[in-house]
Parts: sequence; C-alpha cells; structure tokens
Amino acid sequence: MNAKASHIKIVDCTIRDGGLVNNWDFSVGFVQHLYKCLNEVGIEYMEVGYKNSPKLLKNTDAAGPWRFLNDEFLRTVIPEKKNTKLSALVDIGRVDENDILPRGQSLLDLIRVACYIHQVDEALELVQVFHDRGYETTLNIMALSGVNENELMNAFEAIASSVVDVVYIVDSYGSLMPSDINALVEKFQTHLPNKRLGAHMHNNLQLAFANTVAAADKGVELLDASVYGMGRAAGNCPTELLIARMKNSKYRLGPVLDMIEKYMFPLREKEEWGYIIPYMITGMLGEHPRSAMALRNSADKDKIVDFYNRLTAPKASGGNSED
Amino acid sequence: MNAKASHIKIVDCTIRDGGLVNNWDFSVGFVQHLYKCLNEVGIEYMEVGYKNSPKLLKNTDAAGPWRFLNDEFLRTVIPEKKNTKLSALVDIGRVDENDILPRGQSLLDLIRVACYIHQVDEALELVQVFHDRGYETTLNIMALSGVNENELMNAFEAIASSVVDVVYIVDSYGSLMPSDINALVEKFQTHLPNKRLGAHMHNNLQLAFANTVAAADKGVELLDASVYGMGRAAGNCPTELLIARMKNSKYRLGPVLDMIEKYMFPLREKEEWGYIIPYMITGMLGEHPRSAMALRNSADKDKIVDFYNRLTAPKASGGNSED
Repeated sequence: MNAKASHIKIVDCTIRDGGLVNNWDFSVGFVQHLYKCLNEVGIEYMEVGYKNSPKLLKNTDAAGPWRFLNDEFLRTVIPEKKNTKLSALVDIGRVDENDILPRGQSLLDLIRVACYIHQVDEALELVQVFHDRGYETTLNIMALSGVNENELMNAFEAIASSVVDVVYIVDSYGSLMPSDINALVEKFQTHLPNKRLGAHMHNNLQLAFANTVAAADKGVELLDASVYGMGRAAGNCPTELLIARMKNSKYRLGPVLDMIEKYMFPLREKEEWGYIIPYMITGMLGEHPRSAMALRNSADKDKIVDFYNRLTAPKASGGNSED
Repeated sequence: MNAKASHIKIVDCTIRDGGLVNNWDFSVGFVQHLYKCLNEVGIEYMEVGYKNSPKLLKNTDAAGPWRFLNDEFLRTVIPEKKNTKLSALVDIGRVDENDILPRGQSLLDLIRVACYIHQVDEALELVQVFHDRGYETTLNIMALSGVNENELMNAFEAIASSVVDVVYIVDSYGSLMPSDINALVEKFQTHLPNKRLGAHMHNNLQLAFANTVAAADKGVELLDASVYGMGRAAGNCPTELLIARMKNSKYRLGPVLDMIEKYMFPLREKEEWGYIIPYMITGMLGEHPRSAMALRNSADKDKIVDFYNRLTAPKASGGNSED
C-alpha cells in the first residue's frame, strides 16, 4: 500500500456485518476474544453490532444480542475498556433515537448511520442528535453504484454543512472496480473538503481488499474490514490482508491469525460467506445479493447457469442494509 | 476495467497451472469440455499443459498426460481445432527442444518459456528455436518481486534484441500490489518498447484479478486466467471475473459458468486451491508457497499461528515453476 499507515484507522465489522450471516449468533466468548485480539493488533474501532430497535423490526426473536445492542449487557461483555473504541451501526427507520444514551453513560464511542441517498437529510438529523449526545459520527451512504449525479450533489450540499465527522463510500453490492473507487473518492474530496472519508467494500468480485487499498491510497482514513472477510454474502475486506500489507505498520498480524484459527475456521464450517459464484453474479450486475442468498438457501444452490440466465432476463432493485 | 477489450487476449491456464494442484489428473472429457467452453466464450488461447520432457524430471510416473504433452495424443483429444489457439509452457532445464515439432505438424500455436531472471539468456535461445519452428512465443519471467534492478536491466537488453513476441510479468508468489504492477508495467514498457506484454498473477492476497486489471489498464495485452481461479496454491486470476468485467465485451460469460457448474464445483470438493491463510502468509512474505503447501498436506494444516511464527523467524527462497 502506498498510503502511510499513520493516517489510517481500521473499523473491524466482524460482529455487525458478520451478524448478517449468522443472525448475530456469536457467543459472548467469541466477542470477548475478538475484542482482546483487536486490541492486541492495534485496531482502532470494533463495530460490535447494530443499535436498531426491535420494536421497529419484524422477525427479531431469534436474533443474537449484537443485533439490538443493550448498553448494560455490553458492560457485562466488556467489563474493562481498552484502546480499541466501540462502534454501532443504525439504519434509518429502524432506530429509536431514545435508545441512544448520552456517550458518558455508554461504552460506545462511535455511532454510524447507514442510509440510501434519498434518506440523507433524515440521516443527518440523527447524526446531529448523536453528535449532541457526545458521540463520534459517520454517515454511510449505501448502494453508491446506482446513485445519479444530481442526487449525489444535493446530498453533498447537505453533508458539507452538517456536523458529521466521517462520510463513507459504501460499495453495498460489491460491484465497483478500483478505477470507480478512485473516481468516487476524488468526487467526495472535491465536494466535501472539510470531511474525513471512510470506505466499506464488499468482496463479490474479489475486489474488497483492492478497492480498500485504492481508497486508502487516495487518502481515505477509516477503512472497514472484518476478520477472515466475514460479512453478508461475499463478505468484506479481510482484516488480515489490510494488516499484512500496511507499510511501516503499527499493527500486529499474529492476534488476527489467532482469532481466525480459534474462532473463524470452525465458524466457516457452519456458516457461508466469501467468493461464491451467485454473489459474483449479483455483484457483476450491480444488484442486492438477496436473490443469490435465496439461491444458496435452496436445493438449487449450485445451479449457477440457470441463476445467471434468470437474472439477466428481468431485474431486481434496492432494499435496506439489514435485509 | 478502463482498458478497451479490443487489445486484450486471454490465455486460460486452467489445465497447465491447475495441473500443479491435481498432478494433471484431468480427464479427456474435462479438457474437451473446457476447450468447447473457451471457444464459446471467445477466449483466444488455452494453455493445455506443459511440454517438458519426462526424462529430465524425477517423480513423473503418476502425472496426467497434460504434464508432458504429446502431439499425437493431443490430436485425439482435440480432433477439430476451432478459434481458440493452443499453448504449452516449458521450463528451462526441463524441456528437450527436440520434442517440439515444427508448428505445421503440431496443434500447438504458442510456446511459452518460463525462467528465472538468471536464465533469461538460456530462455531466449529456446525462444529462438521455437520461433524458427513457426510458433508464437512468450518469455515468462517468474518471481519478479525478488529481482534486483541491475539484473532486470541486463535482461531487458537481451530481450529487446530477441525475437520473442510477448514478455510476461509473473507474480509467482502472489505478493505484489496493484501499485507494484503499475510500476513494473511502466518499467517494462520503457525498456521494451517493441515488445507486447503479458501478465500472470497469483491470488495469495486476493489481488490476482485486481492486479490483472491494473496491468490491462496500463496496456498489457495477454492476460492469464484460469476457470474458478484453479492454479497452484492460492490459484490465479479467475477467468469468470475477467469476462464479467470486460467492458464492451466480445466475451460471453455463460459458457464459463457452465464449466464451473459441471466440472469445477465437483473438482473443488476433492482438490484445494484459493484464498487459504497459509498461502496468504507466504504471499505477504514474498516467498514460494511450498512451505504452505506442505503445511496443508499435514495434520497441522490449520495451525496458522505456529506456521506464521515459524516463517517469520528464518527464511526460505527460490525454486522452479513446476515445484
């Protein structure tokens, strides 16, 4: 990586984005070991789950506790806070702002607000609330590959005058190439010169790491990753690759390998994510992976020729981040 | 990909490089179906094996026929030649030039000579022989990540005045980043302005596709790939990704998916390649994957922490391409 490691901060999303794979069924021991490892690696943020509200969502009963983080519960999991800060993600329309305590009463340091481009104004209102309660904030604009120029310019205007600390470029469908990332980062830098940037990539085309590196080389500061790439469908930029290739590194690889050996290998036997052809196909088509996820849960999971023929006839669209 | 598809030619290496995984144990039906698919996709070259000589190698008995291609046998496999040309790779010190028939008597169109930097003169002598027998030729310089500037400049001088058609940049250990590829391509273009270039990447750091795209965007013409990424250790740039992302494409994805569904999924159940942590570690360290391959063949195959600690204490080196 050309980028100096010094300006970079990593946000490990294993629990939050990985929870979309296993319905947040991580044991407390798993999360505690990950927190210990990330501290030893020197990673700056751990996104420990969603802070959405169960009353605003359907089908919530079976979900693990990392889907609806409870501040008291979190204190029992992490009785002693170390250097790695804690983050939670919220979705527009799924979070009750009254659930977010003032920062002084919570273990969380960072609240990230995920939205689609048409929800930016609503998202910035939430950002203002969380900012006023003392949190660091980010705005994560999803599904950028399908956004038109006019929408984006309007969003930039609102964002530029907001209090948000960091604005994320999110390749929700894993459809972007490094050249796309370069162009997007330049555009964000031009129109949001007073904002720090972040990048969250998906691995449908085996480009999550390359795209994250492209972003970092352009000056993007917050880099999302997850251990062994665990995340919805094709997963994310693998934390271990970022660490392995960080020049003049302040990070240590050993503890990530320990987490992979002890926890991720056994988990990958039970749960599926990564470079899997149906996810490649939705990535290539710039679509939400839901059709591919349904295929992988069916008896036809390996019928990729039929799947491709089906998807290249009609076309699906949109959704929300937790879908 | 920024690069126009028009200047690009793909060399599918599934049989040749994939043979390093399964000791070339591909059935005739497998190879025939692949040849049919590559023709339907519109891929320009199929590297159907090695043309080394069994008398120059040890431990050859169990190897499948694609390790020591026989021209008569090849005619029985491919009785009717179509648009996709056929290629074979040879290694310095392992090929008997008398085994290579004049092109008019062979199904092969392209002979590629693999060598390390110190073997370039010897390799160019072979290139001259094969060129004189009517073949297209390439020179594939392996393990470029460890080559010093002076060696490379001497090699360029010899190559520039040779008859070789295409010079390959080979990331044997899968240790290079897109920025490294950009710099290497520029250097090759500066010093070999009269030669076309090729790229052969390995996937240890999940960068084989990104690096191949980086090369193509810089003007590299011949792109090596293999179906479902099958190749030694971490494997190669997946053919399906190149096809999926080729702009204004002359290629069709469907037949690659058919090959994957019918042949590669079942094969991957029996044989192992791809993003596997020990290969990530050798890639990160810029080493030949042999230590990781040995680990994966042992009872300790998932003991990645011990493996990493062991490799970061002392250091191994070099080897030859078929090792």
